[in-house]
Amino acid sequence: MSKVVTFGEIMLRLAPEGYYRFVQVDGMGATFGGGEANVAVSLANFGFDASFVSKLPKHEIGQAAVNSLRRYGVETRHITRGGNRVGIYFLEKGASQRPSKVIYDRAGSSIAEAVSKDFNWDEIFNGADWFHFTGITPALGDNMAAVCLEALKSAKAKGIKVSCDLNYRNKLWSKEKAGQVMGELCQYVDVCIANEEDANDVFGIKAQGTDVTTGHVNHEGYKDVAKQLVERFGFEKVAITLRSSISANDNKWAAMLFDGKEYFFSKSYLMHIVDRVGGGDSFGAGLIYSLLSGYSNQDTIEFAVAASCLKHSVEGDYNQVSVDEVLKLAGGDASGRVQR
Amino acid sequence: MSKVVTFGEIMLRLAPEGYYRFVQVDGMGATFGGGEANVAVSLANFGFDASFVSKLPKHEIGQAAVNSLRRYGVETRHITRGGNRVGIYFLEKGASQRPSKVIYDRAGSSIAEAVSKDFNWDEIFNGADWFHFTGITPALGDNMAAVCLEALKSAKAKGIKVSCDLNYRNKLWSKEKAGQVMGELCQYVDVCIANEEDANDVFGIKAQGTDVTTGHVNHEGYKDVAKQLVERFGFEKVAITLRSSISANDNKWAAMLFDGKEYFFSKSYLMHIVDRVGGGDSFGAGLIYSLLSGYSNQDTIEFAVAASCLKHSVEGDYNQVSVDEVLKLAGGDASGRVQR
Amino acid sequence: MSKVVTFGEIMLRLAPEGYYRFVQVDGMGATFGGGEANVAVSLANFGFDASFVSKLPKHEIGQAAVNSLRRYGVETRHITRGGNRVGIYFLEKGASQRPSKVIYDRAGSSIAEAVSKDFNWDEIFNGADWFHFTGITPALGDNMAAVCLEALKSAKAKGIKVSCDLNYRNKLWSKEKAGQVMGELCQYVDVCIANEEDANDVFGIKAQGTDVTTGHVNHEGYKDVAKQLVERFGFEKVAITLRSSISANDNKWAAMLFDGKEYFFSKSYLMHIVDRVGGGDSFGAGLIYSLLSGYSNQDTIEFAVAASCLKHSVEGDYNQVSVDEVLKLAGGDASGRVQR
Amino acid sequence: MSKVVTFGEIMLRLAPEGYYRFVQVDGMGATFGGGEANVAVSLANFGFDASFVSKLPKHEIGQAAVNSLRRYGVETRHITRGGNRVGIYFLEKGASQRPSKVIYDRAGSSIAEAVSKDFNWDEIFNGADWFHFTGITPALGDNMAAVCLEALKSAKAKGIKVSCDLNYRNKLWSKEKAGQVMGELCQYVDVCIANEEDANDVFGIKAQGTDVTTGHVNHEGYKDVAKQLVERFGFEKVAITLRSSISANDNKWAAMLFDGKEYFFSKSYLMHIVDRVGGGDSFGAGLIYSLLSGYSNQDTIEFAVAASCLKHSVEGDYNQVSVDEVLKLAGGDASGRVQR
Amino acid sequence: MSKVVTFGEIMLRLAPEGYYRFVQVDGMGATFGGGEANVAVSLANFGFDASFVSKLPKHEIGQAAVNSLRRYGVETRHITRGGNRVGIYFLEKGASQRPSKVIYDRAGSSIAEAVSKDFNWDEIFNGADWFHFTGITPALGDNMAAVCLEALKSAKAKGIKVSCDLNYRNKLWSKEKAGQVMGELCQYVDVCIANEEDANDVFGIKAQGTDVTTGHVNHEGYKDVAKQLVERFGFEKVAITLRSSISANDNKWAAMLFDGKEYFFSKSYLMHIVDRVGGGDSFGAGLIYSLLSGYSNQDTIEFAVAASCLKHSVEGDYNQVSVDEVLKLAGGDASGRVQR
Amino acid sequence: MSKVVTFGEIMLRLAPEGYYRFVQVDGMGATFGGGEANVAVSLANFGFDASFVSKLPKHEIGQAAVNSLRRYGVETRHITRGGNRVGIYFLEKGASQRPSKVIYDRAGSSIAEAVSKDFNWDEIFNGADWFHFTGITPALGDNMAAVCLEALKSAKAKGIKVSCDLNYRNKLWSKEKAGQVMGELCQYVDVCIANEEDANDVFGIKAQGTDVTTGHVNHEGYKDVAKQLVERFGFEKVAITLRSSISANDNKWAAMLFDGKEYFFSKSYLMHIVDRVGGGDSFGAGLIYSLLSGYSNQDTIEFAVAASCLKHSVEGDYNQVSVDEVLKLAGGDASGRVQR
Repeated sequence: MSKVVTFGEIMLRLAPEGYYRFVQVDGMGATFGGGEANVAVSLANFGFDASFVSKLPKHEIGQAAVNSLRRYGVETRHITRGGNRVGIYFLEKGASQRPSKVIYDRAGSSIAEAVSKDFNWDEIFNGADWFHFTGITPALGDNMAAVCLEALKSAKAKGIKVSCDLNYRNKLWSKEKAGQVMGELCQYVDVCIANEEDANDVFGIKAQGTDVTTGHVNHEGYKDVAKQLVERFGFEKVAITLRSSISANDNKWAAMLFDGKEYFFSKSYLMHIVDRVGGGDSFGAGLIYSLLSGYSNQDTIEFAVAASCLKHSVEGDYNQVSVDEVLKLAGGDASGRVQR
Repeated sequence: MSKVVTFGEIMLRLAPEGYYRFVQVDGMGATFGGGEANVAVSLANFGFDASFVSKLPKHEIGQAAVNSLRRYGVETRHITRGGNRVGIYFLEKGASQRPSKVIYDRAGSSIAEAVSKDFNWDEIFNGADWFHFTGITPALGDNMAAVCLEALKSAKAKGIKVSCDLNYRNKLWSKEKAGQVMGELCQYVDVCIANEEDANDVFGIKAQGTDVTTGHVNHEGYKDVAKQLVERFGFEKVAITLRSSISANDNKWAAMLFDGKEYFFSKSYLMHIVDRVGGGDSFGAGLIYSLLSGYSNQDTIEFAVAASCLKHSVEGDYNQVSVDEVLKLAGGDASGRVQR
Repeated sequence: MSKVVTFGEIMLRLAPEGYYRFVQVDGMGATFGGGEANVAVSLANFGFDASFVSKLPKHEIGQAAVNSLRRYGVETRHITRGGNRVGIYFLEKGASQRPSKVIYDRAGSSIAEAVSKDFNWDEIFNGADWFHFTGITPALGDNMAAVCLEALKSAKAKGIKVSCDLNYRNKLWSKEKAGQVMGELCQYVDVCIANEEDANDVFGIKAQGTDVTTGHVNHEGYKDVAKQLVERFGFEKVAITLRSSISANDNKWAAMLFDGKEYFFSKSYLMHIVDRVGGGDSFGAGLIYSLLSGYSNQDTIEFAVAASCLKHSVEGDYNQVSVDEVLKLAGGDASGRVQR
Repeated sequence: MSKVVTFGEIMLRLAPEGYYRFVQVDGMGATFGGGEANVAVSLANFGFDASFVSKLPKHEIGQAAVNSLRRYGVETRHITRGGNRVGIYFLEKGASQRPSKVIYDRAGSSIAEAVSKDFNWDEIFNGADWFHFTGITPALGDNMAAVCLEALKSAKAKGIKVSCDLNYRNKLWSKEKAGQVMGELCQYVDVCIANEEDANDVFGIKAQGTDVTTGHVNHEGYKDVAKQLVERFGFEKVAITLRSSISANDNKWAAMLFDGKEYFFSKSYLMHIVDRVGGGDSFGAGLIYSLLSGYSNQDTIEFAVAASCLKHSVEGDYNQVSVDEVLKLAGGDASGRVQR
Repeated sequence: MSKVVTFGEIMLRLAPEGYYRFVQVDGMGATFGGGEANVAVSLANFGFDASFVSKLPKHEIGQAAVNSLRRYGVETRHITRGGNRVGIYFLEKGASQRPSKVIYDRAGSSIAEAVSKDFNWDEIFNGADWFHFTGITPALGDNMAAVCLEALKSAKAKGIKVSCDLNYRNKLWSKEKAGQVMGELCQYVDVCIANEEDANDVFGIKAQGTDVTTGHVNHEGYKDVAKQLVERFGFEKVAITLRSSISANDNKWAAMLFDGKEYFFSKSYLMHIVDRVGGGDSFGAGLIYSLLSGYSNQDTIEFAVAASCLKHSVEGDYNQVSVDEVLKLAGGDASGRVQR
Repeated sequence: MSKVVTFGEIMLRLAPEGYYRFVQVDGMGATFGGGEANVAVSLANFGFDASFVSKLPKHEIGQAAVNSLRRYGVETRHITRGGNRVGIYFLEKGASQRPSKVIYDRAGSSIAEAVSKDFNWDEIFNGADWFHFTGITPALGDNMAAVCLEALKSAKAKGIKVSCDLNYRNKLWSKEKAGQVMGELCQYVDVCIANEEDANDVFGIKAQGTDVTTGHVNHEGYKDVAKQLVERFGFEKVAITLRSSISANDNKWAAMLFDGKEYFFSKSYLMHIVDRVGGGDSFGAGLIYSLLSGYSNQDTIEFAVAASCLKHSVEGDYNQVSVDEVLKLAGGDASGRVQR
């Protein structure tokens, strides 16, 4: 059983039920999520050993965050306890022409103020096969960018594979800052994951013929993006998700994997969306799972896309699907017939 | 900041959650709504001064109705308190081939039994730029038709613009009675709003080539309807919403504005419906907002349709969207991508 | 008013709200359902006298099952009270590419352990016009297969029409066992109901050109299935539902009726699904209603399909629709426009 | 099995969850209740044949009221369908020093506008042993007082025992009117039920030494009240409930039965209240049950008080307890220990 | 109608339903509250003009806070919009021996970072009769202590009465710092409000014979506390609430008013608690209401204590009771009998 | 950190919300619990290593049971996966004079059908300090009694301390059978835990002067019970909980510890009950915690009683309290004052 370490922030997710708007409600769902935590849960649900590394306050809200991970089997003993608060994000689910809305309230969180001595990478990486982080973690502050670098160096020294999801967040840093910091960190990355906008936002590498606002995504244009990423950073593999947003309820979903030589495109799914937050993270988890399981390139991208397609039908940040369920969909049964 | 006065009934809306039928539930959502109240809330959400005029009992259910308006910034001090009951409507949300169902229990409400001396129009219209009512208000009874006439005369005397949404309700009065009363009131109306059936129901002006049961709505046929309305009543402007009902979940939505000379058609939206009650009212609010803001005719109809398109994605009678959100959709971004 | 007796198991249905997965929730909807109970409730909702025969424990969970039937007017005095437990099924609603999932926990239920002396068919069938059961009832055990045989002999002796929905459940018995037992029971059946897979599962009669996994259902291929069923068992009529599963949310729905001579195909509906459990049962109820009401063959199949189409828009196992609502849809109004 | 007929109004009960006030909520529990309906449900739960007679509109809200009765086994076929609305009462549950609050919205209900020809008492009383009504039914209007009189005459002619709960409601009629109408109807009554205030409100018969506001109820003072009632109306039996209200949460509960000769006082219970609405009705049901079951006078009053004591621990208007549960409490086990 | 201005922080209150602990839930009630906001809502519910002054971010969570105030009629136009976040407090309701628990997450809120130029006191105090703040507002930071000082000077210059609730919060500042800052601000205060611990925490003035942990509160000991407060700061009046905590569910509640000469003690109430947060604030509102209404000293303290006694029976921070309800309790009816 | 192993059944607990009765609801809370699982969770919440040993089916309901344990940090890798079903218990919460009601549906559960080879005690006990089981585990069947014996022998061989809670369940076995089996198993037990009835039910050792039905529990009478238990089985320690049930809402709670020489009585608590299921288990966990932590006998019994007193204020089977919270209560602060 492979062991994967992920590192980042886990936030309290406060979301009105159904399609209610923020100003209409007197209660909210209170669950937890965050890019790297989501990857850890998905991998634990696939049966892998997944360890999530972060920092959380000692109080009960911090504990509830830990519990949400333990519930699905994620190892939490490398989560340092301390600091002042759990980051929060408010999520309002969109419908039809009305987009989903996210309000971040994450400044001053325990992990955003974490420092080098909060983490013992030697111990954390003991027995690990893979390390995953996203562009959000270094964006939390210079302190965290520094910790990321330490983690990456330690991982490399131990021969652990590293994946990074670029995951650009414009509320956290500028494109310039992102490009500079991520440029340095990407030197240590083996597998680069991006969505249809990240490469442009972070590194200025733009796909031709795509306009996300109209929902038109030109798949072919991403071949060149992947190629440039490999050339610039020497990635072993680049995987790019390709979302066409028809409406808040309906998206097309596919992805491409580039191994430095060939391009592998997945099937494309037309999805009725239950909850799209964490869609990219579930793709990352699917990719790590299939790569560590020795799948072929085509099977890898099909597994990762099918896994993340299913995520869009699951409430919450975490992808609650099994390997069997993913394989069944990747194998062609998308009919949604009742399983008795 | 423009000030708009609306006048009518606000009802308690009792609705099972989700798609449950009346006979299945032991609890119901208890919110408030009604044609003119919905317009007031939408305008307040757009940042206008909106004052809602009505009559409500003194007890706590009446107070809750007042509170539902104050919550979104509507001025409520011209709501007379007294009478016996808050009108009620029961709403069961339809799905797929099953239509939504409305059961009215509004007889004997405080506003239905209101009389002339309950309202001081001089004071109410102080500082107002626009007066809006719908065909429901005079349909509540001869007493209320008389009060409407007083309000209209007062508005005209003060040079306040008047809009009226025909809003025919066959449970409240016959087509003959409606035609007669509305015919008189429309003499005082500047802007007439109707849906694809109202002009025919109230004034016997029928569009060619439309069959609402099959969902076929012939847009061109409404040019002549608008023209006849202008000719008969001298309206400055006529706006007609054009709904094609594919199923209880899926509707096409568009509208036409006629300024006495030219016809302006909006874009058409294919909507996945969250809640369609109040769709027409949100159109009226959008129209008033854009006309008072000095938009061009084309921009006006685009704004009104985009506003009401968004309403269909919002739970409850009230349209909970901002001017920015409407402009973004009217400007072309209907992709529903997450706003972070 | 016709009187119909149905016989089988009623189970406690435990289902997470909305689209939540089993592992995410701390509470579940707790309602009741089961093939033959669903038929009884639907017929009672159509205004027929419907009597449901079963066995349930004396405790409050058994009582709640009885109450769920009484609430909708089903006669419950022929439900024997005793035994140890109410069978349970856990239901997780699927969405998009993720299928719905059913986990059965029905072994050892009172009805599964019922015996001949628990039922007095003479008394039960007093005044009855029709007897309905499904393949689930005899599948509960040899004891129940024997009771079914007794019931059928009694019904035949009294000249009561008999319908049977093949309803194959592979968790309950093998195809071989099903074929053997159902083969014997079908000698007493007048009207045979099946879905697009049952005839093949139970009797090895396969339709050409159909692959349920891809959602492709070849309607023409079922003519031969119906013909073979009539030839083998001498059924008066065979009705086959034809579901094409596009996704867990979207299905096409139609059916065919064969009267031994002619084939009658219904309209086909594209449904957005609210809850598809009980879809087949609501078809059976619609069929029994229209046959007992003397509808023509074409009207019969249109009524049954419209009734079951509407069921897919209703939460829970039970079809909560009236004859008027079904006739309105069968008559062509599928627009889902609000009924005020 | 004894058969009891009750006659009156069943209302939609809209109540915020828990201890929320009307002005705080966006949803309400929507159940049903009313004095005579409550008695019918309680008797059905005791295993008696109970038939509830009333009038309800044909629409789904009326149907839901019918269903709420059928669910618990009450016979509903003598409920006439027609008229315009289901009466409503809004209930806000009090706590500690804050009293519960009831807002009635019952004017114009189908039953309040019912007339003589809506009820066929010959058919209704077929096989009945007992007829029960309360002072609310004639208070609905002169029409309903007249119908009550007809019912009483029919009952007397058939030798059916009659009980009446005085149940004074000052929102429905004045004390004078009540005294006059009830004075006439009481000529036909065998068993009179009253609470600690009714005899004074309706007939001006006041107990000495009682002040309900301070919670002081002088049990001895009610002996004379009962005696006067018997003397004035010739009742066979008079039963008076004695509630001492310590706070909205805590009440003392007892009762007295007078058989014209002796006074029988029950045990007194100190109750933590879950829901006190329907407390008096559950007492009436307990009294009818024990009298019809031939209990001794002391056992009768103990059963009736224990039954209604348990009602205070049950949510909703209806008393959901069995004979066994009542007997266990009346027999002395008030410890509330878990029953496994 | 008197006008009162209050100034402070309004927070998002996140609280599990009922008695669930933080670590057990997947959702929380999301309402709003805060010392001075609570006073404003209570006064608005009493029919006064109440204006709440604060600073809130522009986003929808800030808007929802504004809406929660408008809903109950509080004037919100002096709430400056800007800054980064709404302060949050997590509330877990205690029961029996388990105490309630509050976790603050309020650092960095818009109001905590507000500065002098965010508030125009001249405009704010236009037409005002009374200004109220609590010790929480200056505790938010030196910036806010400075703003408080400006507000107080402006109020004094305009002849506006000033009340201050000492409201010591040890998570916000030390006793030393509190004593120093509050000592300065209290120079401008006319009416000082404190609970049984505040005077000791802030000014080191301790009551004899009281141990809050055992629930023993010695009422007489507070006479001297009040006297010392008047002597040190020249307050016109000092009001001290006296809570004896028997358990998380049961408290005794009373208060004392000192006018510099005489001591007025209220009745004492034994309360079953629904929600005790905001209890002190509702006392403050009751005090301001009765003082501004010209009540006698004894009536004033009775009104304030009865108002806050009722608050303990109301969910949420805000006191949702009317003047009539308070007067009824203060007048002696604490029986909690149903109001029909 | 001490490590404790517990062994038994974990069941799905289905319970109506609040005080609703089974026959009133359409949904139920769906959580998990069971004697030994409850002990494990409580110990994990105290910071101990707790491992729960059982057998659960592979499907998602089994997985949800595992997740409920992992969420609170219990080690679950010694839970064998297989078998057919998760045992269920239905729980209806009592109030005032109405007792709580439990309906078991546990026959045929995976653990009830488990056999010797499902458990590798050598591996399970690796590193363990303590083994705990209750009388429920061997009561599940002779197979499970045999497995218990194996576990006990293995524990003894490894020098692991053993505690047993007698926990008699009359639905599972007769008193005779219980006495015989438990008599044998108790040979291996060091610490015996019982409630006020168990010793009598299982071993016929009766306390003088106690009648649980009236709520009278004679503490002194239990000295002799403990003495007899020690004499008969050679227990190191005997702990007996002493519950006086005043009503379903109010219980007195205390306990006695006997070390073979002296008797140690705890303080007695008067509790307002939130949820009393698991009260005894939380006592067991408190006892194990304090004994393993080297507390004095008096401190041990105070800790165990305070821990279980707090459990009665927590929803669900699991005790969600920390060591700090228990120590605070045991130390004397039972005032329930808000912790900010």
